[in-house]
Amino acid sequence: MKSEYTIALVGASGAVGQKVIEGLEAVNFQIKNLRPLASKRSAGKSITFKGQEIVIEELVESSFDNVDIAIFSAGGSVSKKFAPIAARAGAVVIDNTSAFRMDPDVPLVVPEVNEHALKHHNGIIANPNCSTIQMMVALEPIRQAFGLKRIIVSTYQAVSGAGLQAVKELEDQTKAYLNGEDLVANILPSSSDKKHYPIAFNALPQIDLFDQDGYTFEEWKMINESKKILEDPTLSVAATCVRIPVASGHSESVYIELEKAGITVKEIQQVLSNAPGVILQDDPSQQVYPTALTSIGKTETFVGRIRKDLDVETGFHMWIVSDNLLKGAASNSIQIAESLIKLDLVHGAN
Amino acid sequence: MKSEYTIALVGASGAVGQKVIEGLEAVNFQIKNLRPLASKRSAGKSITFKGQEIVIEELVESSFDNVDIAIFSAGGSVSKKFAPIAARAGAVVIDNTSAFRMDPDVPLVVPEVNEHALKHHNGIIANPNCSTIQMMVALEPIRQAFGLKRIIVSTYQAVSGAGLQAVKELEDQTKAYLNGEDLVANILPSSSDKKHYPIAFNALPQIDLFDQDGYTFEEWKMINESKKILEDPTLSVAATCVRIPVASGHSESVYIELEKAGITVKEIQQVLSNAPGVILQDDPSQQVYPTALTSIGKTETFVGRIRKDLDVETGFHMWIVSDNLLKGAASNSIQIAESLIKLDLVHGAN
Repeated sequence: MKSEYTIALVGASGAVGQKVIEGLEAVNFQIKNLRPLASKRSAGKSITFKGQEIVIEELVESSFDNVDIAIFSAGGSVSKKFAPIAARAGAVVIDNTSAFRMDPDVPLVVPEVNEHALKHHNGIIANPNCSTIQMMVALEPIRQAFGLKRIIVSTYQAVSGAGLQAVKELEDQTKAYLNGEDLVANILPSSSDKKHYPIAFNALPQIDLFDQDGYTFEEWKMINESKKILEDPTLSVAATCVRIPVASGHSESVYIELEKAGITVKEIQQVLSNAPGVILQDDPSQQVYPTALTSIGKTETFVGRIRKDLDVETGFHMWIVSDNLLKGAASNSIQIAESLIKLDLVHGAN
Repeated sequence: MKSEYTIALVGASGAVGQKVIEGLEAVNFQIKNLRPLASKRSAGKSITFKGQEIVIEELVESSFDNVDIAIFSAGGSVSKKFAPIAARAGAVVIDNTSAFRMDPDVPLVVPEVNEHALKHHNGIIANPNCSTIQMMVALEPIRQAFGLKRIIVSTYQAVSGAGLQAVKELEDQTKAYLNGEDLVANILPSSSDKKHYPIAFNALPQIDLFDQDGYTFEEWKMINESKKILEDPTLSVAATCVRIPVASGHSESVYIELEKAGITVKEIQQVLSNAPGVILQDDPSQQVYPTALTSIGKTETFVGRIRKDLDVETGFHMWIVSDNLLKGAASNSIQIAESLIKLDLVHGAN
């Protein structure tokens, strides 16, 4: 095991990239060099890491020489091109995009859930979709204790998941709305789709592009990634993904059916109160439940509103919230890096 | 049948009351007198009806003399006290509150769904909860065609459902947020509960107070009212009700299981495109789906994102949106009045 590591960060100027930099200041391993990388447009700007200014370099093929771990948060096309280059150069890639998530040779990892999958990496590890991660953190302890047959989730997703420009769009539209002006939409629901709709004071039932069977890519991600992470292709998963006018913090209304009958709300609360990465916030009598605003800046996943379905004996409902830029992206990537080092799975060329 | 009617409106200065006044300008029956009523605090103010100023009178026991139809939108306690008084005075009461909804002697009516229930009224008719109404309008045609076994709904509810002051609170908090100031919460999630949380840039998984089994009153309303309106006590219904920072327009992510197997999305779309009060907006290839903002000012219920569940043969998902102050309250009340008159069920004392 090395004693210090060189970390490359692709997409250093983005919403997730900024959170990765903050998170790397507090990791439990030694960083020799942090190498922030970005497109030509952002290269030359600088970031601050542990009080030190570091200039962002342009991402090129040679950017990964002597890099131990490369964290990618710059969009799928960048990852598709440069992640294999980084891996060949000897770096272990932690990719925040969807580019490799369903590749059978690429582990898709939420450390609290399936850290063991890291052992089989071939140079690239995928970080799951933000809305998948928090659901997995909350449901895996329940699955371990009582078995899990079915998930139906409706999401309430924050705008920062679509990037800093989308947050700016929300703010601009909000100001326009309050001034009685027209709302201009250029980014959401998806910058790469044809039509754009206002998100301010609205709810958009489209995240990412539409794919087969009327489901969006975001919905397919939640469905397929959940099965892969929980290593259960027979698990029933359905998702409806919705963007709401929240800046950060994804919320999810989740219905599950357990394998085991006769389980009580108290037993589920008990399991979650001892689960890694989970904070139980569930006391209706005191109006205690998680919300997007109270999750901001925290790396845990918050669970509340746990209640028994009134008709299906093994059915339960709950409300799962997490900061989508942290546990949903940056923190999970950093945890993966920590797990890789702990398990001695980083073998750089240098 | 009378040729013209005197209408009393209790709660004339509220969010729903204002929409009722607008709606009454376009009804298909003759209004001899409109009598706006409100608490002492609002009495003396005036409203405009068909270009005419009418002074709001204070609601007292004698307010209903010679009234044919009395529409109540002033909160449950006002209805509990004054609706029976109005009914005894010979008026037919259409009550927008939850006071009498589950009373077995009170019809709970969405005219597109169960107009026939009006025939058994005893002077009071209940208007269902806003989030229930739009779901019933969309699901009844599907139930008629294919049978309905189960509903699981997660709501995305607008702030105007909590009144004009809640909308003001959302706007004030939104301005504070944009100015980097603290968000002050005094009303939501429920003005009658102990704690208040910000709604701006947030999602609150509590609407109304908490009741038994960890469900809120709003969730119980959706569950119990759906069974009563569809006249099916065996129907499985589960609800998670969530307030989001939208001014008007309730959205709902709805999962259903049909009785009949082998039904296609096309068949459901076909049924809905011919259903009363429903507008189908469902074309993923053109990004066509309903949203809160596009529903504002419309009296119909909009349905889109219809897709087959991937695991349960009879399961379908959809997205149901309506203007909560119109079809969710004012328009449904006015439709009930029109149905009462059409069916000759108004027999005032005069």
